Amino acid sequence: MSSIFDGNQIYKWAKDLFPICRSIAGPGNKKTLDYLRKINKLIEMKHFDSGEQAFDWTIPNEWHINQAWIKDEKGNEIINFKNHNLHVMNYSAPVDKVVSFDELSDKLFSIPEMPNSIPYVTSYYTEDWGFCIQHSKKQRLDKKSKYHVFIDSQFIKGKMHYGECLIKGRSKKEILLSTYICHPSMANNELSGPLVTTALINKISSQNNFFSYRILFLPETIGSIAYLSKFHKKMKSHTHGGFVITCVGDEGKFSYIPSRLGNTISDRAALHVLSNQKEDFQKYTWSDRGSDERQYCAPGIDLPIASVTRSKYGEYNEYHTSDDNLNFISPKGLQGSAELLYKITSVIEKNCKPKTQFLCEPMLGKRGLYPSQSTLDTQQAVQDILDIISYSDGSKDLIEIAQLINKPVWEIYDMIDQLIQKDVLQVENE
Amino acid sequence: MSSIFDGNQIYKWAKDLFPICRSIAGPGNKKTLDYLRKINKLIEMKHFDSGEQAFDWTIPNEWHINQAWIKDEKGNEIINFKNHNLHVMNYSAPVDKVVSFDELSDKLFSIPEMPNSIPYVTSYYTEDWGFCIQHSKKQRLDKKSKYHVFIDSQFIKGKMHYGECLIKGRSKKEILLSTYICHPSMANNELSGPLVTTALINKISSQNNFFSYRILFLPETIGSIAYLSKFHKKMKSHTHGGFVITCVGDEGKFSYIPSRLGNTISDRAALHVLSNQKEDFQKYTWSDRGSDERQYCAPGIDLPIASVTRSKYGEYNEYHTSDDNLNFISPKGLQGSAELLYKITSVIEKNCKPKTQFLCEPMLGKRGLYPSQSTLDTQQAVQDILDIISYSDGSKDLIEIAQLINKPVWEIYDMIDQLIQKDVLQVENE
Amino acid sequence: MSSIFDGNQIYKWAKDLFPICRSIAGPGNKKTLDYLRKINKLIEMKHFDSGEQAFDWTIPNEWHINQAWIKDEKGNEIINFKNHNLHVMNYSAPVDKVVSFDELSDKLFSIPEMPNSIPYVTSYYTEDWGFCIQHSKKQRLDKKSKYHVFIDSQFIKGKMHYGECLIKGRSKKEILLSTYICHPSMANNELSGPLVTTALINKISSQNNFFSYRILFLPETIGSIAYLSKFHKKMKSHTHGGFVITCVGDEGKFSYIPSRLGNTISDRAALHVLSNQKEDFQKYTWSDRGSDERQYCAPGIDLPIASVTRSKYGEYNEYHTSDDNLNFISPKGLQGSAELLYKITSVIEKNCKPKTQFLCEPMLGKRGLYPSQSTLDTQQAVQDILDIISYSDGSKDLIEIAQLINKPVWEIYDMIDQLIQKDVLQVENE
Repeated sequence: MSSIFDGNQIYKWAKDLFPICRSIAGPGNKKTLDYLRKINKLIEMKHFDSGEQAFDWTIPNEWHINQAWIKDEKGNEIINFKNHNLHVMNYSAPVDKVVSFDELSDKLFSIPEMPNSIPYVTSYYTEDWGFCIQHSKKQRLDKKSKYHVFIDSQFIKGKMHYGECLIKGRSKKEILLSTYICHPSMANNELSGPLVTTALINKISSQNNFFSYRILFLPETIGSIAYLSKFHKKMKSHTHGGFVITCVGDEGKFSYIPSRLGNTISDRAALHVLSNQKEDFQKYTWSDRGSDERQYCAPGIDLPIASVTRSKYGEYNEYHTSDDNLNFISPKGLQGSAELLYKITSVIEKNCKPKTQFLCEPMLGKRGLYPSQSTLDTQQAVQDILDIISYSDGSKDLIEIAQLINKPVWEIYDMIDQLIQKDVLQVENE
Repeated sequence: MSSIFDGNQIYKWAKDLFPICRSIAGPGNKKTLDYLRKINKLIEMKHFDSGEQAFDWTIPNEWHINQAWIKDEKGNEIINFKNHNLHVMNYSAPVDKVVSFDELSDKLFSIPEMPNSIPYVTSYYTEDWGFCIQHSKKQRLDKKSKYHVFIDSQFIKGKMHYGECLIKGRSKKEILLSTYICHPSMANNELSGPLVTTALINKISSQNNFFSYRILFLPETIGSIAYLSKFHKKMKSHTHGGFVITCVGDEGKFSYIPSRLGNTISDRAALHVLSNQKEDFQKYTWSDRGSDERQYCAPGIDLPIASVTRSKYGEYNEYHTSDDNLNFISPKGLQGSAELLYKITSVIEKNCKPKTQFLCEPMLGKRGLYPSQSTLDTQQAVQDILDIISYSDGSKDLIEIAQLINKPVWEIYDMIDQLIQKDVLQVENE
Repeated sequence: MSSIFDGNQIYKWAKDLFPICRSIAGPGNKKTLDYLRKINKLIEMKHFDSGEQAFDWTIPNEWHINQAWIKDEKGNEIINFKNHNLHVMNYSAPVDKVVSFDELSDKLFSIPEMPNSIPYVTSYYTEDWGFCIQHSKKQRLDKKSKYHVFIDSQFIKGKMHYGECLIKGRSKKEILLSTYICHPSMANNELSGPLVTTALINKISSQNNFFSYRILFLPETIGSIAYLSKFHKKMKSHTHGGFVITCVGDEGKFSYIPSRLGNTISDRAALHVLSNQKEDFQKYTWSDRGSDERQYCAPGIDLPIASVTRSKYGEYNEYHTSDDNLNFISPKGLQGSAELLYKITSVIEKNCKPKTQFLCEPMLGKRGLYPSQSTLDTQQAVQDILDIISYSDGSKDLIEIAQLINKPVWEIYDMIDQLIQKDVLQVENE
């Protein structure tokens, strides 16, 4: 399969980054961004300071985690953080004590329905400690034993890092791509987002663009809130469209989650592309949202940001467990997502409102737009040209015109270009 | 069944008022209003003077009816008004003469399809006389006999009485409840309307309301026209919503008749409540209207008044006959209607447009809105809170927000209250 | 079948005009217009000069054709223009030479699927020559023979004639009827259009009209472009509605092609009438357009012009062949089309926005609008009157009101007239 994206390459990045223990702030995030910056140096490392205020929120301290384990009273190790990042509740406070089975049980998360999977649990905003374990292993624990629980973690006033990349285009209007870097050792949700996004940066930065592209790698929720708290006014005036990129690594069918307003250029472009794919797709509603579109589309912020995923967060069994691993995603899945998202952003990039320069139909013949030999094919081509001209009243954009003549928009680009060259149409980009 | 309304009480009122002979103007109406004023002294007796002009209409004289009967030539009494108010055509002119069977027949109304029922016939605006009789009895009349027809009635220049009740709320904006008191000795159409309305007055006047409530007990058509001719400008600026209340006594399923404009707060509240009841309901169109909404919604008047009934006028066999009697209605039917109408007005009363006080999502945790223990139930509660906040952009009211998150609006009141208390939302009432 | 139109008369005109060889400009067109002017002298002959500029186009020279034939090397005549106008490609350049079968074949058009039909082929804007032949005859040609091709035609700088008729009404607002006169020896497409249009002129000019009617007989495309290039500003301000009239001669079911804007009075009237016919009809979209609505509705021109046909151009087998002849059309088909188009224009003619002169319902009784004897029929009549008054708020036109009360609009004209006479309604025409 020939493509402008290399799924194997993206998958290799995933393998490298999978073992790192990320959180909302801490060394794992910095390490992850350092890695991405090596792939594309347009990605800049930036930060907010711990304790800084961001709207209703406060930038958290860095979380440093060194060791974490549970031992029974015989000294047998039950679980150890070094075997899997998910074994410790993310952002756990330190602990070092001996507890009864009952006390332990409250702090030991497992999934009865998935006895061999470790759940992903966090406690960012309530100081607490905890462990996560396979339910089968939890059930085998001796209820009579005492257990030594040990977490060597620290909260350090420092920095909440994020990545930002600006690819300047001819326009100051921007397309925003936002993804998140706070999930440890899970693959679809979430390494696929930042990695597909990085592949998009490589591609988009290699070409001459009309729009500027702003790409953000943030810790989820607090990251977008912090960013918006500083830049929302500028973003409001500059952001033309964009997407939250998450859960794009597996081979499940594509999903669309609308923006809050529901009919922005991002929604229209995504739906147009998805509706013109061979494969079926899943259409969600705003109530099904769950990532940073919650902030980008919040009342008063109202950026035109939609979301396109494959198997959506919350909608697949492996979600937020140790089963969302490198086997759950694939080179093919990652590559197909990069292709689709590139196709959608290209539709936004190329969109415009053409306007005929003539009253009544122009004479196609003298412009070489009318076939000298008339066949069924050329007749259809003439009809398509006349249809496009007749809808080019300056009020309709290419997506709308393509839909009116029942074609994918990319099938009319050549005709539009030709009509512009022949001075039949003029276009107004955003 | 515990309720804020007592169906047996309402039914008792119906029994007391059923025998009174009401018309568009006359002593029966005054007597009826006197009775209602004993139930709730907030109801005031008011009147228009006979002969007064009201838009295109003239206030009629009082109709006083003393006796009315038909006797055959042997002196046998065929029918007598004292046995049933419906036996005399309502608003009949006096008559005292001997007529042939043929002459009588033209003035003797009956229903062939309902041989044992007396029809309800009126002649308000053409001076005429007439009788109403069971068809079976009419058929047994001797066609050879002469008949003595006698109606002792008088048209007296006097007053057309009506009842009015104003329950002041914090706002000058009013909810209008309008019902009619011109029907003699029928139960669903019409004693149920004024009696359920009186029960609503008792309830609403016992509480602290945002809106003011204006309640009218009028003779149908001429009453609302007369009232509007005096007060329509004030009503236009003050009336926020309201309902015509009629045919609410039986146990048939509920019916909804829209306002002429069709999407007022009254329509939306009624449809929201009816759609969220267990029981099915019947949805009519403006063309099916038939009571005082004809005047309240007339072009140029355009008040936001809809109608909610049970078995609707014109849609049940007993309508406008002696079969629409105390057996046709029931305590349960009356009580259920009072409950439903109270529920609908409460939805209007509590409606507002909430607006989040935060850019981006507020931090629920520090406001005690985020559960410390996460279960499926608490997750859903958090999701509901975030949904409500995300729709609280100041442009949507509670009914719309409830519909967007697929809940009856009364299930979000607690959350809204909590969010207001926590300063997350502010609301703007009408 | 009694009608205001005489299908036999229209068919007789068709027989007279069928043999004439028309084109975009030339003596056949003038002859055709002369004939129509004899039917109704309101039709004026007008012209544009050859070489004149019309927007992006140039008015063509007249095409004069005298002879055209093909002979084989033995002198046998293969086809001759004098036997059928379609045998020569319309607007052919002169030619006189001997060619091989292969050379001939490229210039000899036929339809393999319809071996006994002569196709209709034109080359207006590329100078070329050609012949049209039955495919069965083409197949019998000797591939070894040489052929003498002879066309005696001339392009003469002269006039492009068209017909115009203005029927003045009380308003300066106009209804435009446009049809075309450039097709030689075909019947449905196109003699039916100009002939049904002429019948409409006879009818409309015999009566007192509110709107003015402008009727155009043009060569297709270049004619409407030329006309618009001179008069589009005036037309934009004066044209209230109208239709392109074509393909209205056969007995196929009616078809509707919308205007580009899609919801003009022309669209609404056509759809209302067609939806209230007993017979089914075919609804097309703007993408199915194909005649002069392409110019009238072009962006920036945007006249409210729709199209109603029977078997639509391009949608029947006989289209653009010698089989679209006098057998394909019929007196009944022509007459039915005239009736339908007259019905539609009448709906536009009579349309208005009634407004009640009363606040609340008027008293029907004192205006003789309320039956003294009440039956089911009179009750329905009263209901209809009240419905009409209640929708007569000045914002809705008769078509909309009729649709709201579920009647064909012509069934409410009498009631509207009565209500106007009784001063209940006032109307505002366009």
